[in-house]
Amino acid sequence: MNTADLGLPVDVPSTALFTDQYELTMLQAALKAGTAERRSVFEVFTRRLPEGRRYGVVAGTGRVLDAVENFRFDAGVLGFLRERDIVDEPTLEWLASYRFSGDIWGYPEGEVYFPGSPIMRVEGSFAECVLLETVILSILNHDSAIAAAASRMSSAAGGRPLIEMGARRTHELAAVAASRAAYVGGFTSTSDLAAGFRYNIPTVGTSAHAFTLLHDRERDAFRAQVNSLGRNTTLLVDTYDVAEAVRMAVEIAGPELGAVRIDSGDLLLVAHRVRQQLDELGAGKTKIIVTSDLDEYAIASLAAAPVDAYGVGTQLVTGSGHPTCSMVYKLVARAESADPRAPLVPVAKKAAGGKTSIGGRKWAARRPDADGVAEAEVVGTGPVPPELAGHQLQVELVKGGDVVAREPLDTVRERHVRARAALPLSATQLSRGEPVIPTEYAVGRSGS
Amino acid sequence: MNTADLGLPVDVPSTALFTDQYELTMLQAALKAGTAERRSVFEVFTRRLPEGRRYGVVAGTGRVLDAVENFRFDAGVLGFLRERDIVDEPTLEWLASYRFSGDIWGYPEGEVYFPGSPIMRVEGSFAECVLLETVILSILNHDSAIAAAASRMSSAAGGRPLIEMGARRTHELAAVAASRAAYVGGFTSTSDLAAGFRYNIPTVGTSAHAFTLLHDRERDAFRAQVNSLGRNTTLLVDTYDVAEAVRMAVEIAGPELGAVRIDSGDLLLVAHRVRQQLDELGAGKTKIIVTSDLDEYAIASLAAAPVDAYGVGTQLVTGSGHPTCSMVYKLVARAESADPRAPLVPVAKKAAGGKTSIGGRKWAARRPDADGVAEAEVVGTGPVPPELAGHQLQVELVKGGDVVAREPLDTVRERHVRARAALPLSATQLSRGEPVIPTEYAVGRSGS
Repeated sequence: MNTADLGLPVDVPSTALFTDQYELTMLQAALKAGTAERRSVFEVFTRRLPEGRRYGVVAGTGRVLDAVENFRFDAGVLGFLRERDIVDEPTLEWLASYRFSGDIWGYPEGEVYFPGSPIMRVEGSFAECVLLETVILSILNHDSAIAAAASRMSSAAGGRPLIEMGARRTHELAAVAASRAAYVGGFTSTSDLAAGFRYNIPTVGTSAHAFTLLHDRERDAFRAQVNSLGRNTTLLVDTYDVAEAVRMAVEIAGPELGAVRIDSGDLLLVAHRVRQQLDELGAGKTKIIVTSDLDEYAIASLAAAPVDAYGVGTQLVTGSGHPTCSMVYKLVARAESADPRAPLVPVAKKAAGGKTSIGGRKWAARRPDADGVAEAEVVGTGPVPPELAGHQLQVELVKGGDVVAREPLDTVRERHVRARAALPLSATQLSRGEPVIPTEYAVGRSGS
Repeated sequence: MNTADLGLPVDVPSTALFTDQYELTMLQAALKAGTAERRSVFEVFTRRLPEGRRYGVVAGTGRVLDAVENFRFDAGVLGFLRERDIVDEPTLEWLASYRFSGDIWGYPEGEVYFPGSPIMRVEGSFAECVLLETVILSILNHDSAIAAAASRMSSAAGGRPLIEMGARRTHELAAVAASRAAYVGGFTSTSDLAAGFRYNIPTVGTSAHAFTLLHDRERDAFRAQVNSLGRNTTLLVDTYDVAEAVRMAVEIAGPELGAVRIDSGDLLLVAHRVRQQLDELGAGKTKIIVTSDLDEYAIASLAAAPVDAYGVGTQLVTGSGHPTCSMVYKLVARAESADPRAPLVPVAKKAAGGKTSIGGRKWAARRPDADGVAEAEVVGTGPVPPELAGHQLQVELVKGGDVVAREPLDTVRERHVRARAALPLSATQLSRGEPVIPTEYAVGRSGS
């Protein structure tokens, strides 16, 4: 099972090698020591948000569920591990029948998070959980970074549509995940056909400067485009002279021209001039799309400009200065023995020099104030206080190895809008600041 | 054909949808206008290096060759394009038999580059070349960004080994490409098993804090690891108290202990203390590996410390502040008509507001001074001056659609070492500065 369950056409191949070697060597050593089967709880969290950010956005959860289901060691993979002598034969035998059989709880995709939020919790034997560290972190760290940038951009854009067009600025498959995360964070469409194919995200695009340059005259290029794509197309008007191109565009397509795109220059100034010119030419309904090196600040600075849509590339797919999150995957509790009934013991690294964490399996709730606005992220161990029981954030994602929470991307996208709207208004300020709500720790009886 | 030709086990699936929609709509319009078959020259170049960087590193070329060969529109892909009404039936028919049949020249992988360097040149009909824009840029922009960071880190590390361990900080497949690019840039090994599987890069890894925390005592964890992985293993010594852990590590493994790893704290201070302690314990050959949030500056600051290897994660896979390059793919010349004998006309965008470029098919040479040290990147159109003929940079990569320049990754890695060594010494200064050699333009007779 995988995304195909949602009617999408793409199977996910084995994800078992998206793994750091130490996960397999730890498995081998634990199998030999008799500790591999100790029941264990791993949690994904981040110690801090990227500097200046007010909130984080959970994204990639759906991809994690696919990756966990497709985490299998087939003959080719086992052959590789044997040939390279990465682990011993007993470990290879154990891997051959690997199938995650534990439980995963986590923040639902699209939810916001804060420092210390237990974004995902993976529970099962040490052996089956330790192997998932890298693939889970890869997905969540990448996708959440993109979604956070997208969310800021969609706030800045107000209701105007945002087009994701950054595929050329990032790894070709990271680009597909970036489109998906951008959609979660509020983008409207993508230029990336693979993202349309895999995730059913609306795709857009008409022409580049190369198309104008291919033809003997700009006029010929516009005519060719309108002839083939119709009057409702978007003509790119900044290859030579913008004013002349706009005039010609309306001459050729008529006032039904769908849109013009501006990809260079002083966008604020040019957008005003082009709007005035279009209106004077009777093309009052022709839209203006701008697409040059935008980020959330540039988008915000165009709020009062006559711009109808933004195309965003580089700054989106690189997380607008923060291309990754700092989520970690830590063992927070484990059983005293391999006996399935053995009690859990909270554990945590304790050396000097930072990187410490709080042991024990955690719950999380977002406490609202009297007006329903979030006022604190409460993270705790032990029993959940009754007044917070209705505000818990974690949901069951995998139960006994079966995915129980697969959902359409539009559901995720809507959840993000709701989650962000429930934060204090200052959450969507673009300026640098502290997390918009504090994280409070409520440490109860230890860990289980 | 693909990387499997090098004895590697992985086929590359169709890459045809790693494409921005506008490439297909331009194709449709050009087919209808009769301009699609005009012979065209596209070039990949960058207008600037990331701020402060002295040189760029070409990486991903081998992956581009795979991607071009596997750029095919199968039934599933065509069905998607039809169903979503992205292009019309004549275009779908044309795509069904798509196979790139043109020529590609470029800087060989591992070579360095500068602003304006024509890193890759794709020549064929407009139709067949325009489709490759996004996939080529995705690969080169991502891989070159990682290789540039890796190259700076390997300079800073001197001869000490560098371990790539950033998989968890980037998209799971970007991570595999990042390992490959890091190896090109001078890294020694990777923690990422998929990178070992796909590209035969040496893999390493032993244990994480979770392994220590799984066991009742640190002593039990160390014993379990040594029992299973041998005395030559690397023990992680900073879960609780470093000095106590080092003492215990040597007690358990003996002076044959392979290495200790330090993943937190003041690395300079701790490395010195640990070295002294190991020496006093008779473990003079036990190595010290450090792995905490390193970048090229932190690596350089540890040059005088008793460190034997560096593990680098986040800062490597995010390009150490520059997660992408700004390479573009521009039409620089095209025929006057669809006649295959029609002469080429240089073309270039000319609107105000930047983003202009120089038309015409370009050659490139790196001019050495009397001592053989590079003194300028010379980029020109027209005939190559005789004195530069022996210093040309571009090589033939694809001829009439066939890949002619596939090579093992070790060849690429060695080329990078040689290319960097031929630059002025200041190339490897880590401080911000201008490109270490200037780019000179030698514009000859126009364009062809």
